Amino acid sequence: MDNLMPHAVTLVEVGPRDGFQFEKTVVPTDRKLSVIGRLVAAGLKQIQVASFVHPAKVPQMADADPLIRRLPRDDGVVYSALVLNRLGLSRALASGIPAVEISISASDAHSRKNAGMAHADALDQGLRMIGQAVSADLYVRASVQCTFGCVFEGQIPSARIADIIRRFVDHGAHVLALADTTGMGSPPVIKRVLDAVLPLTGRLPLALHLHDTRGLGLVNLMAALNYGVSIFDTALAGMGGCPFVPGAAGNIATEDTAHLMETLGICSGVDYRRVGVISREMEMFFRKTFPGRMHRVTDYAVSSA
Amino acid sequence: MDNLMPHAVTLVEVGPRDGFQFEKTVVPTDRKLSVIGRLVAAGLKQIQVASFVHPAKVPQMADADPLIRRLPRDDGVVYSALVLNRLGLSRALASGIPAVEISISASDAHSRKNAGMAHADALDQGLRMIGQAVSADLYVRASVQCTFGCVFEGQIPSARIADIIRRFVDHGAHVLALADTTGMGSPPVIKRVLDAVLPLTGRLPLALHLHDTRGLGLVNLMAALNYGVSIFDTALAGMGGCPFVPGAAGNIATEDTAHLMETLGICSGVDYRRVGVISREMEMFFRKTFPGRMHRVTDYAVSSA
Repeated sequence: MDNLMPHAVTLVEVGPRDGFQFEKTVVPTDRKLSVIGRLVAAGLKQIQVASFVHPAKVPQMADADPLIRRLPRDDGVVYSALVLNRLGLSRALASGIPAVEISISASDAHSRKNAGMAHADALDQGLRMIGQAVSADLYVRASVQCTFGCVFEGQIPSARIADIIRRFVDHGAHVLALADTTGMGSPPVIKRVLDAVLPLTGRLPLALHLHDTRGLGLVNLMAALNYGVSIFDTALAGMGGCPFVPGAAGNIATEDTAHLMETLGICSGVDYRRVGVISREMEMFFRKTFPGRMHRVTDYAVSSA
Repeated sequence: MDNLMPHAVTLVEVGPRDGFQFEKTVVPTDRKLSVIGRLVAAGLKQIQVASFVHPAKVPQMADADPLIRRLPRDDGVVYSALVLNRLGLSRALASGIPAVEISISASDAHSRKNAGMAHADALDQGLRMIGQAVSADLYVRASVQCTFGCVFEGQIPSARIADIIRRFVDHGAHVLALADTTGMGSPPVIKRVLDAVLPLTGRLPLALHLHDTRGLGLVNLMAALNYGVSIFDTALAGMGGCPFVPGAAGNIATEDTAHLMETLGICSGVDYRRVGVISREMEMFFRKTFPGRMHRVTDYAVSSA
């Protein structure tokens, strides 16, 4: 089973976007910048910092522009923003962010709730946006939501996912991503979808965005690792969720994933103890317990590696 | 990787012992019996219901005797109790319980805290207890705590685990179990220990008792499944922990494990939705959130199988 297992992985920190967006309390821009700076110090090299959505609907992300203006330049970190529609892309282009994620849902029902349009329309619009962003020299990650199932539609046919990925590739995306928005993935589903998708990705890197809704986040990561996938979205403390998916739980936790990689002898470059310190601070800030584990044990644990 | 993967697994429910013991609130005997009855209705065939420990030190388990007297007879369910010392075994023998787990720690430091004696003394005593219990026609499970690491001692040499297992076999134990008391297991550690232990178990079944302290409970279960292990302790809602391990988190959740088995096409015989109903009731009873996941999503989830 270790044949395709990578020697190193890239963890893409999505807490400042997926995590902060899911909490009612709005994190002040200064605090966001402090968290982002310490995530970089902990070893994260790719961080999704904002989403260009309607500021009245998602006030947590209303400071996307000033936040992006104040990010460090030339620190070797890829800062990105999520973009769900054309207005969002215009704002992203004007903001100076160097990388965007353009995301559409494979589920028609979820697309209507999350993006306010049918899947087919969202796909057409998404493909045009990918072309536009690529032309504007942005680094473009194109992602599919609800890849591994949808609470409204059940399992999504692999052929539909494959067709979307093929069109992402044709339209010039630089990175591809599959998101388990509803946490319905399981090892057989991960394998089925990867079998359909991996032959189409060519030289493009493929990332997975896994939620732990059903407790299978890291199990699914292991299944994908065994297929050679080496880029995973994670959120500090296991924050996050989808406001349009009932019962959605957080992303796989950055510190838990980095710790797992250490036990496997796979380099992530991320110091899970330092991430854990930030996660504990976030629990104090939001006055709640997040689902990640390692930030609660880093103080006294003998290394398990 | 599916070579040794079993077609069916046995989940041993330890919530009424490991879970209830870890909470400050004492569950009344009537309530325990109600929970146990519904766990049986949900498909659990082996349930650990009590621990014979000092009633003043662990009041949650003080009703072991009356509880055991009131358990159903001849319902095909194996009810067991945990036994940590000779007095406990005497009480178990008098109680009428048909099965006991005799458990010793592989870690000297943990043994001194948990059992009040050095590892070597606990092992000697444990082996005598196994012989005594076997002679008394009890069904005896012999288990090793801190198998996959100890927060006080770090990793435990596989040779020490193997030696304990060899002596358990020699003394007539009917089932063997390895416990990840501190949740320090990881796939490589699981494999290393199983490589050392499996050649010694002969025809005896081997169970794993996994805690999710570092978020790797189900990842470790997958690693063991791939080695053909097919008996796993679980606790409803992911309750449980060890009072002598700082930051200890719960067992792998019964409903999460049963759900994972369903996604893998492996029969567990356990209806995770029915377990989830009991788990939600336990959250109301204890007025807290437990770490399991599936009991929060069973109401509205489209099957992910």
